[in-house]
Amino acid sequence: MHTSGNLPRASLGALFNPRAIAVYGASSDPTKIGGRPLDFLKSSGYDGPLYPINPKSAEIQGLPAFATVSSVPGPVDMAIVAVPAPSVFAALEDCAAKGLGGAVVLSSGFAEVGGPGVQWQQQITELTQRTGMRVVGPNCMGIINVRRRILGTFTPSAAGFGLAPGRISLVSQSGAFGGYCLSLIRQRGLGLNLWITTGNQCDVDFADCVNHYALDDGTDVIMGYVEAATNKDRLVSALALARERGKRIVLMKVGSSEAGAQATASHTASLAGSDQVYDGLFKQYGVYRARTIDELFDVAYACSLARQPPKGKRVGLLTVSGGVGALMADVATECGLDVAPMPEDAQRRLKEILPFAGTRNPVDMTAQLVNDLTLFERNFDLLLAEGGYDVVVAFLSSVGQVLDLSSRLLDQLKLVLQRFPDRTIIMSMLATPEVRKLYEAANVMLFDEPTRAVRAASALAYLAAESERGKSLSAPPPLPAAAQAPPGQSINEVDAKRILASAGIPVVRERLAASEDDAAAFAAELGFPVVLKIASADIAHKSEIGGVLLGLQDESQVREGFRTLQQRAHSNAPQARLDGVVVAGMAARGVETILGVTRDPVFGAVVMFGLGGIFVEAFKDVSFRIAPFGIDEAHRMIDEVKGRILLTGLRGQPPADEEALAQALSQLSVYAALHADDIDSIDINPFVVLPRGQGALALDALIVPRNHAC
Amino acid sequence: MHTSGNLPRASLGALFNPRAIAVYGASSDPTKIGGRPLDFLKSSGYDGPLYPINPKSAEIQGLPAFATVSSVPGPVDMAIVAVPAPSVFAALEDCAAKGLGGAVVLSSGFAEVGGPGVQWQQQITELTQRTGMRVVGPNCMGIINVRRRILGTFTPSAAGFGLAPGRISLVSQSGAFGGYCLSLIRQRGLGLNLWITTGNQCDVDFADCVNHYALDDGTDVIMGYVEAATNKDRLVSALALARERGKRIVLMKVGSSEAGAQATASHTASLAGSDQVYDGLFKQYGVYRARTIDELFDVAYACSLARQPPKGKRVGLLTVSGGVGALMADVATECGLDVAPMPEDAQRRLKEILPFAGTRNPVDMTAQLVNDLTLFERNFDLLLAEGGYDVVVAFLSSVGQVLDLSSRLLDQLKLVLQRFPDRTIIMSMLATPEVRKLYEAANVMLFDEPTRAVRAASALAYLAAESERGKSLSAPPPLPAAAQAPPGQSINEVDAKRILASAGIPVVRERLAASEDDAAAFAAELGFPVVLKIASADIAHKSEIGGVLLGLQDESQVREGFRTLQQRAHSNAPQARLDGVVVAGMAARGVETILGVTRDPVFGAVVMFGLGGIFVEAFKDVSFRIAPFGIDEAHRMIDEVKGRILLTGLRGQPPADEEALAQALSQLSVYAALHADDIDSIDINPFVVLPRGQGALALDALIVPRNHAC
Repeated sequence: MHTSGNLPRASLGALFNPRAIAVYGASSDPTKIGGRPLDFLKSSGYDGPLYPINPKSAEIQGLPAFATVSSVPGPVDMAIVAVPAPSVFAALEDCAAKGLGGAVVLSSGFAEVGGPGVQWQQQITELTQRTGMRVVGPNCMGIINVRRRILGTFTPSAAGFGLAPGRISLVSQSGAFGGYCLSLIRQRGLGLNLWITTGNQCDVDFADCVNHYALDDGTDVIMGYVEAATNKDRLVSALALARERGKRIVLMKVGSSEAGAQATASHTASLAGSDQVYDGLFKQYGVYRARTIDELFDVAYACSLARQPPKGKRVGLLTVSGGVGALMADVATECGLDVAPMPEDAQRRLKEILPFAGTRNPVDMTAQLVNDLTLFERNFDLLLAEGGYDVVVAFLSSVGQVLDLSSRLLDQLKLVLQRFPDRTIIMSMLATPEVRKLYEAANVMLFDEPTRAVRAASALAYLAAESERGKSLSAPPPLPAAAQAPPGQSINEVDAKRILASAGIPVVRERLAASEDDAAAFAAELGFPVVLKIASADIAHKSEIGGVLLGLQDESQVREGFRTLQQRAHSNAPQARLDGVVVAGMAARGVETILGVTRDPVFGAVVMFGLGGIFVEAFKDVSFRIAPFGIDEAHRMIDEVKGRILLTGLRGQPPADEEALAQALSQLSVYAALHADDIDSIDINPFVVLPRGQGALALDALIVPRNHAC
Repeated sequence: MHTSGNLPRASLGALFNPRAIAVYGASSDPTKIGGRPLDFLKSSGYDGPLYPINPKSAEIQGLPAFATVSSVPGPVDMAIVAVPAPSVFAALEDCAAKGLGGAVVLSSGFAEVGGPGVQWQQQITELTQRTGMRVVGPNCMGIINVRRRILGTFTPSAAGFGLAPGRISLVSQSGAFGGYCLSLIRQRGLGLNLWITTGNQCDVDFADCVNHYALDDGTDVIMGYVEAATNKDRLVSALALARERGKRIVLMKVGSSEAGAQATASHTASLAGSDQVYDGLFKQYGVYRARTIDELFDVAYACSLARQPPKGKRVGLLTVSGGVGALMADVATECGLDVAPMPEDAQRRLKEILPFAGTRNPVDMTAQLVNDLTLFERNFDLLLAEGGYDVVVAFLSSVGQVLDLSSRLLDQLKLVLQRFPDRTIIMSMLATPEVRKLYEAANVMLFDEPTRAVRAASALAYLAAESERGKSLSAPPPLPAAAQAPPGQSINEVDAKRILASAGIPVVRERLAASEDDAAAFAAELGFPVVLKIASADIAHKSEIGGVLLGLQDESQVREGFRTLQQRAHSNAPQARLDGVVVAGMAARGVETILGVTRDPVFGAVVMFGLGGIFVEAFKDVSFRIAPFGIDEAHRMIDEVKGRILLTGLRGQPPADEEALAQALSQLSVYAALHADDIDSIDINPFVVLPRGQGALALDALIVPRNHAC
């Protein structure tokens, strides 16, 4: 049992699917943290044996109790542990000795409070590494398996069970958030499969749970709340696995504001990576990031009822109110859906059905719908057959408050659904609970609020497109065989560019001149005009001390320039070691961009892209990706930046060579990933993108080796 | 009674508060459009006499019927008209003859369907102008006065009354939207005062209704849905009156997307002004623009329950979940609220209450709250007393699902409210309907979803600040006495700048040279370097034909430049009439901006502001205001533009003279408003803003007179 070193991480199967459960610290008082899970498990209908563990009583809540789990006669797979923090480790040792596959530690008083708790938690981590037993928590809200009716939790939100089995599974790092979500799941009647809160994550972390859900055939939709990832590789591979297995992931990540990030840090004592890095990660792995709790639930709900992922972004809008139709069109456009008009001929046919209504898209059935229910099917039919929309959102005002009317409409809708099995239909109307159940039983999703219905359509289209994209991702390019290692200490820009060039990044033609004569000779070789720049590893921001001279036209200007730069360096940065003066060709006119690499505490090498000039500084208009990534991902990075429009050829300029730019970003990501431990940051600024077909090149670059931050 | 010409518009009092109501086209079938309002009015408890008008029956729905309203014995103030479109005019003539103050025409078949309906509607408009009788509709859903229990509508949403009296009044241009809102008002239990839908607006328009609500002492909150204003002056004065009288206005305006705008146009046949212009209008008059129906209702709900408008934007966040606390902090920051930290000393005192919880802001009570309810009052007290927050949003997860717990918390909350009567408290928790009623009865607002609670806080702070701002608005500046009229035909840039200068806009020093000698002499007078530009009313975009030469250093360069420009004009624009060459001083370094005036079909002269260069073109980063406006409004225009950061002094640049910029915008607005009918557009581009204290000046300008668009 006790092997040394780290075992490969075992499955969470014993936790979610135990044959028998022990409850350590089981209490006779069902309102206490140690009494409540036992009470829940007893009353929920869990079909396996339950063993209260409590040395002080022979019977707890009517069940025979045991002093330790080792004295339990039969096999036990999982323990719920609610003893005080100082006694948790001993309990877990017993569990491991008995050969349990997992334990859920509800008790608090560990790393989150500091003091000896930090060490107790560390002991538990070591125990899991030694034994392979998986431990959830400590300081968590527990675990639920709806189909097995396992309520291994003390959250009051689980009282009375009240959960419907379904295909959504939820993982929340925060226990309070997880409990709140459980209440919402019950309130909204969502179908749930598995639920877990990970607390202090001494062993089982957020990524492990995503991985488990990715492998779980009972789960289609993964809902999650994450504050800080603990292990990049685990998270990235879990997200990739989930995408590969067709799961749809909807996550909420807080801490985008300073106040929010500080709040997160203070309550989990964990260092969250930059919020923008998470944003890049989610886009990279096709995760839908929800910004509100409403959105988190709306999207999960839509995913759980969508019959087929939408094939595209064309949305048809059907309405009984012209105003709401226009509103839906506004929001759809804002979300990036394509509110394509109906074909002219189909519009004529719609006009025959309802002469005075809107037919373009949105299609307005007007209040006439109530007088003639067949309008619904006929309009829908034309929308889907002639409009060819991937998704249709239909707004029916308060129709859902009248059961008879709603059920007759549903009958028509069922015919439509049969005829167009590959389309996604989203209904919006105020409905009674009874009508809602009726529609959902027919697998039709229903939103009270029409803009939320449209946003759900957009989320479904995004997730479907991401899932497709995941099937044919381009691999990161290989690193050139001649690629040089990053420097061990700070280097000048010429050396930085030489290293980057070796890694496949195109750089400007330039040479380092040690003397005035060298400079004149190199300039003649490159061809005039040229640029001169001070070369020194100690001067990061050359232009601030006048260390750059542009457009030198002949040898005499170059000679004079060489002397000027030396003087300026001596007077403005007397301690700087000078390596000489860089002589470079003038770049052809292009669009200035910035490529960067930073080291994230969680995610390692992260690549940043932005437009040059004031765009990064003033508008924070940048995108991020975790290194390494392929060229298609690089193109998406470029697309996400608003300033991308500058690359498309504004004001009569030629379009820029985005292909060369994407190539460079991808190449940079491969280099950065390989040397993540040795590089603190890389800053290629400007990276000039020339007109299409002419490539791109780095004019200046800075590589800061790890532990040599300037 | 029959006077000629337009009467001053009478009050809507007779419509909303009639002594007696006649129903034209009253039907015995309560499901028909002419039967339903009578049925509603009979059963709702309206206390005045009801007179069915129907020549074919002596009795309708148990009430004696009359052939026309003129045969009704007593006084009648208002008629509901549901006869077919061709008979409506005659019915209204009867009404006017009897001296009714108003009528509501539910019938459709007018301008919205075209044909003879257009003329019938025009006849009604003329009747109202002739008689002063106010007519709502046609093609509308009617009118409601909750306190008087008047349901003058046929929307099924009004069936069974089900409305609670309150201080919100609603006006919707769209009937279907109005009916949907009525259902939502009932569903959410909002307190309603008056409700009206304006339909085709042959007489009573959206602005009339806002004006009525502004004057109505029973209304505090005005909710509205508008598609297209019909009269700028009426709308602007109604909005200004509402602000002056302390009403809070929450509006929804659709059509921000092309598809949405087209849908709006097709179903009302009205030409809506540019969506961005409405956006500017709403900001100018302190209207809160809701982007979703949820938001429309959340904000109206918050306004109806807020005890006091918040004094500022400092928000305190109280939570039982660290994660939700961080989420609320993120959203609050995004909304522009100030999530200021608690003072250090107060944080120490919070730590004494709960050693391990977040104390900075958000303040985390953790799940301990359930064990010790006094935590709530003690934490709240510290937040308000020591943190001094204007608004506090408190998240309590699912506490509202337990009645006993919730009512004990409410008792504590009442103590807090008494101690801090000037603060706004917003609660967020999942609650049973019973708990919700309990809290709302105590004037405490309750949101299920915490981010919606935070957005409501932000809306309340915005509305309060706007209401304050309305009390001390700076007046538009006077126009200089020497201001010249706009041109009657297209003019060159020199003349354009001369006119603008006369109106108080600073312009660059420049002169028009007819000859090479003149140019040389003017250049010497202005001082080198100078700029030369082709001057021609026929060449709007000079730089595209190489018509601008910068940085000419001496007389010979100026002479050569003069000849070059003449050549270029002759070869590139041979038909253009040349007025000569402009000689201008080089502007000092400043930030390039664009000031524009356009003519909106509804709102007349509209002023636009944006940063120069690609910002307007690529990012649409502009703000709008209806002319005229004062300097403080101009400052807000500047603040709204993201690129404003360029004016603050980036990269070591000095901050720009925003005061001079605001002065110019305001001055331009006064000139544009005065000459709105004679100007198609003005384009001042670039308008260079110099460093603070040094002013600003127009380098180039174009005035396009009305009917002379280029």
